[in-house]
Amino acid sequence: MELAKGVRAGDKLALARALSVVERGGEVAEQLVRDLYPDCGGAYTIGVTGPPGVGKSTLIGALVKHVRELGRSVGVVSVDPSSPFSKGALLGDRIRLSEHFLDPEVFIRSMGTRGHPGGLAEATLEALLVLDAGGRELLFVETAGVGQSEVAVAGIADTVVLVLMPGSGDSVQALKAGVMEIPDVIVLNKSDHTSAAATLAELRQALSLGAEEGPPIVSTQAAEGTGIDLLWQAIEQHRAALEQSGGLALRRRENLRRELLDLAASRMRRELEQASADDPELDELIDAVAEKRLDPLSAVRALRARLG
Amino acid sequence: MELAKGVRAGDKLALARALSVVERGGEVAEQLVRDLYPDCGGAYTIGVTGPPGVGKSTLIGALVKHVRELGRSVGVVSVDPSSPFSKGALLGDRIRLSEHFLDPEVFIRSMGTRGHPGGLAEATLEALLVLDAGGRELLFVETAGVGQSEVAVAGIADTVVLVLMPGSGDSVQALKAGVMEIPDVIVLNKSDHTSAAATLAELRQALSLGAEEGPPIVSTQAAEGTGIDLLWQAIEQHRAALEQSGGLALRRRENLRRELLDLAASRMRRELEQASADDPELDELIDAVAEKRLDPLSAVRALRARLG
Repeated sequence: MELAKGVRAGDKLALARALSVVERGGEVAEQLVRDLYPDCGGAYTIGVTGPPGVGKSTLIGALVKHVRELGRSVGVVSVDPSSPFSKGALLGDRIRLSEHFLDPEVFIRSMGTRGHPGGLAEATLEALLVLDAGGRELLFVETAGVGQSEVAVAGIADTVVLVLMPGSGDSVQALKAGVMEIPDVIVLNKSDHTSAAATLAELRQALSLGAEEGPPIVSTQAAEGTGIDLLWQAIEQHRAALEQSGGLALRRRENLRRELLDLAASRMRRELEQASADDPELDELIDAVAEKRLDPLSAVRALRARLG
Repeated sequence: MELAKGVRAGDKLALARALSVVERGGEVAEQLVRDLYPDCGGAYTIGVTGPPGVGKSTLIGALVKHVRELGRSVGVVSVDPSSPFSKGALLGDRIRLSEHFLDPEVFIRSMGTRGHPGGLAEATLEALLVLDAGGRELLFVETAGVGQSEVAVAGIADTVVLVLMPGSGDSVQALKAGVMEIPDVIVLNKSDHTSAAATLAELRQALSLGAEEGPPIVSTQAAEGTGIDLLWQAIEQHRAALEQSGGLALRRRENLRRELLDLAASRMRRELEQASADDPELDELIDAVAEKRLDPLSAVRALRARLG
């Protein structure tokens, strides 16, 4: 395939086209991934997650600048609908990010939340594979969230970075209660805010409840570039530890297992939605349950059976 | 069925047994729900959700006390693993809640996060149906979370109450960014904390971004019982508005539709997990993908096909 060749050569226009193919989904996208997959595996993926408003995009912008100075090539995929990336970078970010848009060794793509006939998770995985096959050494995936499920999205990453800010009380509580998975690195961004010290103390206290040693906590002011070198060091340390212990291969296999099951399940879910959209039989089932002629569990069985 | 008869009579021991049946799941549970379903529909369900640590259980305890004084019978189902209800009520709550445990018109059950061969969501729905058939007028469902998915769990409710506290910055941001669904009533609990006024202002500002009128915000100190009457009034007002507009029937139908699809999808997901647990073929699939002999999307197709 001509497009696959361009991707393998790392051509930026070919990458852009390939990612559009992936966003449209379908058989063409699958064929492209099939072609490219043997060339994948060289990239290292860093998941950047956290609640809206903590400055994830700005932080990724600063990290990209930092690793570009180290000569590494970069791909960024954002699946955060509220991310500045999805608006082509906003306000103060516009200048910082636009220099990256012109850099041939930086590729940034924001995945829309609509479309994706194969589902957003599938499109995101495919986008990462395309960038990986295109020779990008470092991949950043930005996801938004404050709960468990959002950190799980970042579970396709080799290193998961959770970004918080002073006032992120709910996330601190969620970590403390074990409702949120412990990430590999924690960033306290906007650390110039007055309540930064208090949040840092709460965070340390929340993490010290576990028996094991907690993840490193790095304070940053991404908009000024402060702390970015230390953050990158923490990410590199996590990577080195994983690679030395053989944990990276294990982690990737575990991620792969979960991804395959998740994608298969979400496919079935979509098939079910499609099979039941505008289907008078589903309406009849709901009527029957609403009118107490049928109990909900029998209705669920009937629905399940229709997917065969 | 003898047990169904006891449930219909509202017998507390029968309710306890029925909920255990539901927690164990399987054909017996489904048969019980089938028997009881025609008697359901009389209860009004209030979902209480919010991040860990904001005092949801204490708030529910105070609401139960309030509605008991109004002579209403109550059922509480908690699906929050960090809830005091799941430990039989803790510390200061012990006294407040234990009076309820002795009241025949109050039934409290915490759903464990383990077990539930049919899934937690299915068991929760069944538990609510049992309490409904048992004649409880008001049902409270407690769920923990700071993200979208958790509010969705509360989507089986007629009125959704989101509980926050001073310092719930992440939830305020999530509401503002549209990442979290807008609930029907918002509670700012622990409103005696110093930063309550600031959080209230942020919350008002976050909600005023939408064109429509936002939900009512009620300040409470659940541990002292302060503001509970106003909160109950806000819930009753939401209920009255729904009932007068005919919105309640529509909402219940929409909830039902989503529930049926969700439960069918989660059944398929479990079947897939079961079909692939300890299955050498799945390991072979993962090996093939890990060794680049097979691309992940073809592996997903193969997995999906196995459920037939």
